[in-house]
Amino acid sequence: MNDQQPVQLRVALAQVDTRVGDLSGNAELVTRWAAKAAAAGAHLVVFPEMTLTGYPPEDLVLRESFARASEHALVDLAATLEEQGLGELAVVVGYLAHTEGAGPAPVDSIPADDDHDRPGDANPRHGAPRNAAALLHGGEVVVRYYKRHLPNYGVFDEARYFVPGTELPIVRLHGVDVALTICEDLWVEGGPCGVAGQAGVDLVVSPNASPYERAKDDLRLPLVRRRAAEAQAPVLYCNQVGGQDELVFDGDSLAVGADGELLARAPQFVEHLLTVDLGFDPSSVPDRREGRIGPMTVTRHVLSEAPVPAFEAVPGLVVEPLSDCEEVWRALVLGLRDFIDKNGMPSVVLGLSGGIDSALVAALAVDALGADRVYGVGLPSKYSSEHSLSDAEDSAKRLGLHYSVVPIAPIVDAFSGSVDLAGVAAENLQARVRGTLLMGLSNQHGHLLLATSNKSEVAVGYSTLYGDAAGGFAPIKDVPKTLVWELARWRNAEARRRGEIEPIPQNSIDKPPSAELAPGQQDSDSLPSYEELDAVVADYVDRDLGMAELLERGHDPEVVARVLRLVDTAEFKRRQSAPGTKISLKAFGRDRRLPITNRWRESLPSVREGAAL
Amino acid sequence: MNDQQPVQLRVALAQVDTRVGDLSGNAELVTRWAAKAAAAGAHLVVFPEMTLTGYPPEDLVLRESFARASEHALVDLAATLEEQGLGELAVVVGYLAHTEGAGPAPVDSIPADDDHDRPGDANPRHGAPRNAAALLHGGEVVVRYYKRHLPNYGVFDEARYFVPGTELPIVRLHGVDVALTICEDLWVEGGPCGVAGQAGVDLVVSPNASPYERAKDDLRLPLVRRRAAEAQAPVLYCNQVGGQDELVFDGDSLAVGADGELLARAPQFVEHLLTVDLGFDPSSVPDRREGRIGPMTVTRHVLSEAPVPAFEAVPGLVVEPLSDCEEVWRALVLGLRDFIDKNGMPSVVLGLSGGIDSALVAALAVDALGADRVYGVGLPSKYSSEHSLSDAEDSAKRLGLHYSVVPIAPIVDAFSGSVDLAGVAAENLQARVRGTLLMGLSNQHGHLLLATSNKSEVAVGYSTLYGDAAGGFAPIKDVPKTLVWELARWRNAEARRRGEIEPIPQNSIDKPPSAELAPGQQDSDSLPSYEELDAVVADYVDRDLGMAELLERGHDPEVVARVLRLVDTAEFKRRQSAPGTKISLKAFGRDRRLPITNRWRESLPSVREGAAL
Repeated sequence: MNDQQPVQLRVALAQVDTRVGDLSGNAELVTRWAAKAAAAGAHLVVFPEMTLTGYPPEDLVLRESFARASEHALVDLAATLEEQGLGELAVVVGYLAHTEGAGPAPVDSIPADDDHDRPGDANPRHGAPRNAAALLHGGEVVVRYYKRHLPNYGVFDEARYFVPGTELPIVRLHGVDVALTICEDLWVEGGPCGVAGQAGVDLVVSPNASPYERAKDDLRLPLVRRRAAEAQAPVLYCNQVGGQDELVFDGDSLAVGADGELLARAPQFVEHLLTVDLGFDPSSVPDRREGRIGPMTVTRHVLSEAPVPAFEAVPGLVVEPLSDCEEVWRALVLGLRDFIDKNGMPSVVLGLSGGIDSALVAALAVDALGADRVYGVGLPSKYSSEHSLSDAEDSAKRLGLHYSVVPIAPIVDAFSGSVDLAGVAAENLQARVRGTLLMGLSNQHGHLLLATSNKSEVAVGYSTLYGDAAGGFAPIKDVPKTLVWELARWRNAEARRRGEIEPIPQNSIDKPPSAELAPGQQDSDSLPSYEELDAVVADYVDRDLGMAELLERGHDPEVVARVLRLVDTAEFKRRQSAPGTKISLKAFGRDRRLPITNRWRESLPSVREGAAL
Repeated sequence: MNDQQPVQLRVALAQVDTRVGDLSGNAELVTRWAAKAAAAGAHLVVFPEMTLTGYPPEDLVLRESFARASEHALVDLAATLEEQGLGELAVVVGYLAHTEGAGPAPVDSIPADDDHDRPGDANPRHGAPRNAAALLHGGEVVVRYYKRHLPNYGVFDEARYFVPGTELPIVRLHGVDVALTICEDLWVEGGPCGVAGQAGVDLVVSPNASPYERAKDDLRLPLVRRRAAEAQAPVLYCNQVGGQDELVFDGDSLAVGADGELLARAPQFVEHLLTVDLGFDPSSVPDRREGRIGPMTVTRHVLSEAPVPAFEAVPGLVVEPLSDCEEVWRALVLGLRDFIDKNGMPSVVLGLSGGIDSALVAALAVDALGADRVYGVGLPSKYSSEHSLSDAEDSAKRLGLHYSVVPIAPIVDAFSGSVDLAGVAAENLQARVRGTLLMGLSNQHGHLLLATSNKSEVAVGYSTLYGDAAGGFAPIKDVPKTLVWELARWRNAEARRRGEIEPIPQNSIDKPPSAELAPGQQDSDSLPSYEELDAVVADYVDRDLGMAELLERGHDPEVVARVLRLVDTAEFKRRQSAPGTKISLKAFGRDRRLPITNRWRESLPSVREGAAL
């Protein structure tokens, strides 16, 4: 290497939308985007975490046939890239590794000094599955890296699936030493980036699958900067984009220099090839070690010593993060679109009540799928106010979706002729007649039914199981009612800005919310104001605060008591609810796992006299 | 200690049914059973894992207020036991510990050599929650043990919640050195029992929460024997009993001598105080060490040196395990009863179709709750055969439950007057009218609706979402259809043996299964034989076998292809299904976590020419 002249490299981050379980489709995606990277003059391209399997593959990991197929797909991909004339490009791709390991050994033969607890049951996982990344080059798998830090909180269950890695491979590419890490490894000080820093590297690459959450992009840049400082090298953070059941990935891929400079940042919620031109001064790395460093073993692999011919570096694209409302809107649109499209559904149907929730979901669905794939149905009952139907029609017209009306009164009457239901039972009946009608249309025409429940309702169980809660996907399940209104206003303002028709009727935004299941019924008859409700839910559900802390934070004690009772007793309904896109710190679903059978009720701690801890 | 004369101890295993979240109720339970143990002359009583919180508390662990309340409840319990005159009895009780730890520290400040991966997200767990057991004596908490091995497979998520322990406390009680361990610690060779063996102990106690699974009792005794050999001391295995959402705990508590002799075994599925008289020869323990041993630190605590006065030892009760059918039946009865009772439901309602599934669920419900708490409803349609209604009536009469009939034709006709549905949509409509009627009765009268789906149906999605799948609990969700028949025959034979009326109509057992949603419809029109189906489901779902292995095991390739396609595409239905008692190696629910959006389909591996691993 020439110490006088900086060594250069053009790198690319392929922020792509993979499909869980689609090994061949994802391999084709990699080949297509590798060709784009090569055409852009890149020498190295980085794909997201578990590119070949999609993320998260959940219990597919436990299927040995799947893990073996993933290993095969990796080898095949290396060969395909070479065949396509892309062999000179170094490609870092994520996959599921099936490595030899403890194997399905007798349950008690696990070494005692192994802190990573293993299945002790009769059905342990096959071999030693790993969350892996490989560097492909010249038709070969050059090195394989196994993720060291396995997240096992929130929506993540990686300790269920993977054995952590202990080796850090460093590959010299055109005279540049590149270390491989994966996702959570970045979140740990003294983790693989620290080891890379001690070993001496020129560049760290990090494939990620980091789900969207409001304001999460505010966390990523400082984090990547800290790791770049630790590694004393630039860090390339490539995140996936797209929806997968309850999760949506926003991309937001980043390149940060050794000095913490933001070199490039990709747009959120779209596939994107982010190219970055890097210059290295190899003499700035004082030492290049291998072997045991801290808890890891560093290995070094030389692919090519000769630097690439000098080229004129161009500054990287740096996209500004989106505003909060736009970010949430695009998260919801992409989460919905990918759920529908990746599951091969041609169209969606939903009930339009004239209320804000269904109006917002309809607007999201039209943004996600186009009006032609969205079917709205007005389902008036004898308690529906006049504006219900007119607002529903208005919503349908503004959006240009397919619209029809089915009055439910004759059916409700038929039920009432057979069974005697009153009060809440009679209210729920109407909601279930609507659910049954909509599911009938879903079955008949192949539409997926969208549930319109918002997070405030799901929290307190203010919905009818198999009624308005029915559906295959619940796009605003994690959106509190106050944010529903805010998003509606934002979306209308956005339409005005673009000179388009406002998609959401102003009347749906302005009128007081009502389930209209009884004469003159309003949400405020049963619930505190949504401002109060949402504030308590954010603290109790998202932040897991107890009674003392809730009161300290100034919530009204009576409101807290009511809301907590409702939240605690609605768990059985939530357990049967459709998935919806997570946008908050803690979404109902995989993210929050409470027992149904649960006697715990928050109260102020009663200190026993004389008792002390 | 007197080396000539054996030291004695009478110990008791309190196999109790706790309630998740009910700290004060569980503490009262401990006090009540400690009194029974004292009355039986015991010197030491062992309760199940996490006695005070119930198990599994799931995300309640993440609530700091709950963990603090658990700590308080433990201290209060010690004081209460003393006040009740039970201070001389040593009580080993499980609880949730809230210990100081890394705390909610910045996400990147975790030491690199900590292999137990921590939350890296914005909302890490409070302090360091621990799955703990304490020995209470004389009004004090004498020692606390923190579970070392945290299961994180199947239904277990303990790595999500707990920080593993590194200390092994050994308490000398009446001259006997007692080591504390918890549940999974027993499943690990060289784990805490191995450390106890190296340290030198007289006795190991193990509070457990080990869920029932068919044939699991066959695993426990050999396991406990291996650990007794490792510890060179008797092992007391106390398991909890009772239902908690999807899980049922069977008890099956055991005492095994140092030589592997089975000293006592408690009956399954009932609360029981198992007393065991033990004799120790302290001189047989060559060495008594403390300090660092292997990965743990052993501490020693002396409570009392003086042996108890000699008493006449009585042989322990050794209950024979139940037959497979009786074991499953009692598991289902207890799982159902505890779900209903612990959730405070007064009664259950279910649709009686005259078929075997609803007849079996009705019989289970009557065994679980008594006939007076069970409401059956016949819901004939125009496709119902004559025997449907007569068999349903027969079932209701045999069981003595409340019975009524609501024909659905007028309601189905009302729907048909409003929307035009045909084929599967029309079939599902009938099921949903039934679901809506039953939910109406549930809402009106406070009954919990039981879903009657079996595992074969749930596997292949042969059920209607919000129709026959509707309900708050699905008692036979994990029972394959072939086992449904077997259980029905067993239960009738049991009735004959007892001289009682057979609870299940023979005709319901004998007739070919049909959903009766279309003229002349039979299950065999849409599905392979249940023998074939259940065999494939057991291998594909329970054992996670891939295509090559399925064919190797001799399944018909066409049947395998059909069944796998159905299982793979029914995930969205299962995600919204009611919980039901797990009895198999792998139940649908928390135990099996597959993505809905999933392109992976099993096929024979196609080996790429020239590709090799």
